[in-house]
Amino acid sequence: MPEFRKDPIVDRWVIIATERAKRPVYGSSGEVSDPRECPFCAGNEAMTPPEVLVFRDEGDLPSLGKWTVRVVPNKYPAVVPDGRGIQIVDELYAAQDGIGAHEVIIESPSHVTDMALLGDKQIAAILRVYVERIADLRGDPRLRYVLIYKNQGFEAGATLEHVHSQLVALPMIPNRVLEEIGAAKNYYESKGRCLLCDVIRKESDGRERFVIENDRFIVICPFAPRFPYETWILPKKHASSFERDSQPDNTDLARILRETLRRLSRLGNPPFNYVFHSNPLDQDENDYYHWHIEVLPKLIQVGGFEWGSGFYLNTVTPEQSARLLREASP
Amino acid sequence: MPEFRKDPIVDRWVIIATERAKRPVYGSSGEVSDPRECPFCAGNEAMTPPEVLVFRDEGDLPSLGKWTVRVVPNKYPAVVPDGRGIQIVDELYAAQDGIGAHEVIIESPSHVTDMALLGDKQIAAILRVYVERIADLRGDPRLRYVLIYKNQGFEAGATLEHVHSQLVALPMIPNRVLEEIGAAKNYYESKGRCLLCDVIRKESDGRERFVIENDRFIVICPFAPRFPYETWILPKKHASSFERDSQPDNTDLARILRETLRRLSRLGNPPFNYVFHSNPLDQDENDYYHWHIEVLPKLIQVGGFEWGSGFYLNTVTPEQSARLLREASP
Repeated sequence: MPEFRKDPIVDRWVIIATERAKRPVYGSSGEVSDPRECPFCAGNEAMTPPEVLVFRDEGDLPSLGKWTVRVVPNKYPAVVPDGRGIQIVDELYAAQDGIGAHEVIIESPSHVTDMALLGDKQIAAILRVYVERIADLRGDPRLRYVLIYKNQGFEAGATLEHVHSQLVALPMIPNRVLEEIGAAKNYYESKGRCLLCDVIRKESDGRERFVIENDRFIVICPFAPRFPYETWILPKKHASSFERDSQPDNTDLARILRETLRRLSRLGNPPFNYVFHSNPLDQDENDYYHWHIEVLPKLIQVGGFEWGSGFYLNTVTPEQSARLLREASP
Repeated sequence: MPEFRKDPIVDRWVIIATERAKRPVYGSSGEVSDPRECPFCAGNEAMTPPEVLVFRDEGDLPSLGKWTVRVVPNKYPAVVPDGRGIQIVDELYAAQDGIGAHEVIIESPSHVTDMALLGDKQIAAILRVYVERIADLRGDPRLRYVLIYKNQGFEAGATLEHVHSQLVALPMIPNRVLEEIGAAKNYYESKGRCLLCDVIRKESDGRERFVIENDRFIVICPFAPRFPYETWILPKKHASSFERDSQPDNTDLARILRETLRRLSRLGNPPFNYVFHSNPLDQDENDYYHWHIEVLPKLIQVGGFEWGSGFYLNTVTPEQSARLLREASP
């Protein structure tokens, strides 16, 4: 049973999930794994736990290997649906059962290893899967937040190379999200405007950190990026939660996400993470919190300076990153 | 000129230091570099900037290659001594020149790549170097914090394998340290005791997370560790700052640090960081903040879950880590 433990000093939960030590690792040396042994490839469905959700092309019967996107519980979960809830260990330490859901979104039946190689339609389907899973998990009153993220490449934390993303539903709001909400609220209270709406207005004007845009979304390099080529994808029209803001076809978001990843891919195909920053499940749409996606390439290592300070050392300015990404037109 | 930039949303500074992109990288594949080309080896002193501090054996003349520990400015600094100070960019963004000091402590004249292989006397000399550098930097009224850390191994952020640690002196207190101080103050105000003194009392009793101890120090695996085999080295007697608490010979700390690293080395010699958590330069000794060293092995990758949540996913319990470290007697 995984367990949440709270650091007694700083406001930081860790999840101790010993089962995850048994995960297969495809290796740091970048070798390509054998698709016949890949648990995410079509035909190998029996190698994963039974699916939670599956998308098929219209007219395809539910037969083995005929699917476009598949969601399965993580075989080595960080959190699990069953447990007893909070258990305070003593006055110094707090712990609780690792209740939640940890799912893997298998993004293609084929052994593709770079999301940038998927088509717009496929990426739109993946986004629809995210929305449907959040809608379903919202029904569990114990859950307060659904974190959607991708680890692509070993250095970004992936243990399997077949394109996939993950979803962790948690019984608490992550402190990173709480910090964002708190800061957004403060800004709104003092200025009467949404902070990220102001950022969008500024970056559309100045354009030195502007990357690309379409009707509904803008991609920028943030003013204080942690990593080279870090980008944020933001809806132009204010909205607090990704799932409520999503369109039936997700075309605009799919296109701009794919375009962003293709440009990143052209800059040396770095390992990367993306993370959806969206409103907690139990909070209403509001005027201060603005959902967005952060794309974090992993070209430099995080070391003692970052662990000790909470600060980051970056070697590329966002202005330079934005220029290179603008020029990296596929 | 490096630049500090503040994230407009969360309280996080990043340092943009484009010169650092030119650093040599000895590679992720673990190849051993040629000591003849190593800028940290005795005889190659001309390959580094002139030294800030050097220790020699008694009786050794200040000739080339005759030294035990050497401190030089980082050739690719995150921060530099000269600059103009604060410059607010606009009402949304804040930036300032990257003022400070970034130094490299070369821990041996020989091409040793694992600090655990150094002797107690050598490690005591390294600790004395830290103390002397902090004492010197304290004289610069612009500086508020000196962060001492080590990156050993490529995965831990090292770009050179020759044993070394680093020191970054900053004009602001890092937010990780501010969080610790705030939490320690809160605990002290509500209980009348130091939080880490309570942790030490508890872990000496319970012993399931206890690793080793000597007269002045105790090593434990923390209750909520971010990483497998994470350990904290704590002075048993309350003190807020490492440098004021240090003994003239540093024998007890050198011994327990070496012993900790030797035990870690026996568990597969993982890449690791260590970070000194100590009182800011401009704050007095007090009853609530307890200095300590955190040793963070890098056996698992940090991914989207950690970036998005601020939480950590660990696969080994601290009780298991402590047992393995207790049994890994050199």
